Amino acid sequence: MRNIKLIIEYDGSKYKGWQRQKKGTTTIQAKVEETLTKLLKEEIEIDGSGRTDSGVHAYGQIANFKTESTMDTSVMTDKLNNMLPNDISVKRVMEASKNFHARYDATGKEYVYKIDNSETPNVFMRKYALRIDQKLNVEAMNYASRYLIGEHDFKAFKASGGKKKSTVRRIDQIEFYEKNGLINIRIRGNGFLHHMVRIIVGTLVEVGLNNMKPEDVKIILESKDRENAGRTADARGLYLNFVQY
Amino acid sequence: MRNIKLIIEYDGSKYKGWQRQKKGTTTIQAKVEETLTKLLKEEIEIDGSGRTDSGVHAYGQIANFKTESTMDTSVMTDKLNNMLPNDISVKRVMEASKNFHARYDATGKEYVYKIDNSETPNVFMRKYALRIDQKLNVEAMNYASRYLIGEHDFKAFKASGGKKKSTVRRIDQIEFYEKNGLINIRIRGNGFLHHMVRIIVGTLVEVGLNNMKPEDVKIILESKDRENAGRTADARGLYLNFVQY
Repeated sequence: MRNIKLIIEYDGSKYKGWQRQKKGTTTIQAKVEETLTKLLKEEIEIDGSGRTDSGVHAYGQIANFKTESTMDTSVMTDKLNNMLPNDISVKRVMEASKNFHARYDATGKEYVYKIDNSETPNVFMRKYALRIDQKLNVEAMNYASRYLIGEHDFKAFKASGGKKKSTVRRIDQIEFYEKNGLINIRIRGNGFLHHMVRIIVGTLVEVGLNNMKPEDVKIILESKDRENAGRTADARGLYLNFVQY
Repeated sequence: MRNIKLIIEYDGSKYKGWQRQKKGTTTIQAKVEETLTKLLKEEIEIDGSGRTDSGVHAYGQIANFKTESTMDTSVMTDKLNNMLPNDISVKRVMEASKNFHARYDATGKEYVYKIDNSETPNVFMRKYALRIDQKLNVEAMNYASRYLIGEHDFKAFKASGGKKKSTVRRIDQIEFYEKNGLINIRIRGNGFLHHMVRIIVGTLVEVGLNNMKPEDVKIILESKDRENAGRTADARGLYLNFVQY
């Protein structure tokens, strides 16, 4: 039995997120499983590194599956891309070690959030970045983000509801850079709570708009109260960039 | 009477081209005129630097119009962008000299054509670049493009039909460069015939696929016969980059 690892890119705009749901709901996992099942002529189930929400994109989602197939990995890449809808692309198919598991073995993740803060809207990024008209103070946002680095209880930056598991996570890096006229925020950590990246971005945007002071982020973090943080930034700007193992 | 110049960016995917047509046909010119008419409360007609076909995009289409309005140009920019659909963006509004005419005064144009020739498809560019799976020989394409530089009769690179005007044009530059993993072809000249850029690209792609030799481009040019050139490359990859005055 081979264990195969996939690197998957997708435009999440039209999907109800990564995770397979009840029949008839269009999700990325379901599309990829359906395509693999058709291609390999055996029932395939894949495990992703984690869920992405409705509308969220990925450059490097990782998944793995077991198969009896002997198909060459580069042949499989080409065939999959011919069969998949054109908003899902398999970037690589690789042999994985027997015990590799895309979710359990992940030790970290990196997300990128894109903001179009140019003077006039970029029409080509309207579905792929958050548009903010008012000039953001990126320096203040960058400064504010320092309070989030390290291991903290991120309860204030988690969507309310869900099971009572630990809300302690470690953020290793938050980096701001400009690319193609967009503000990119890269966030790397050992794991992320539901909506955590988007609430962090929504809060940093409040700082960038001078509605909050950078120091407020420290107070919000310590409050452990979701009500104090900014709004959940739109899904369209968020990309799962890569998964660390 | 003021004469106002606009720099306009648009995603042409959903439009039947630039040029205003009969009522009910969605074109970029019609959308911009409608929005200006509503904003300035007077009947506005704009002149563009030239047509772009159905599905073709622009980073820098130029248009001008006459108005009695005294509205400040930067206020006009913001108000227009608030009112326009989000696939059209006015990048700048400027005062133009009394006699400036976007079409008659244009002395040159620059187009960019984007090709996604990466090993696996780029999902985010599926509507904004021509996807070609097979590896292109860009060096051969670049070499072939040299035959097109200068003043020539480009009849072989013009959509058939149309009025019997001169088909002589001058191409000043054809440049290949990679950006964000895409092959970009930048073509600058004093004017372009209907479909000329797309037929040039379609022909260079044949060279890149080794279906034609670079030298064939010279023979096609001299034949003045559209039948000999390659197919008209898809509109989705074409961008009007800027207009020279």
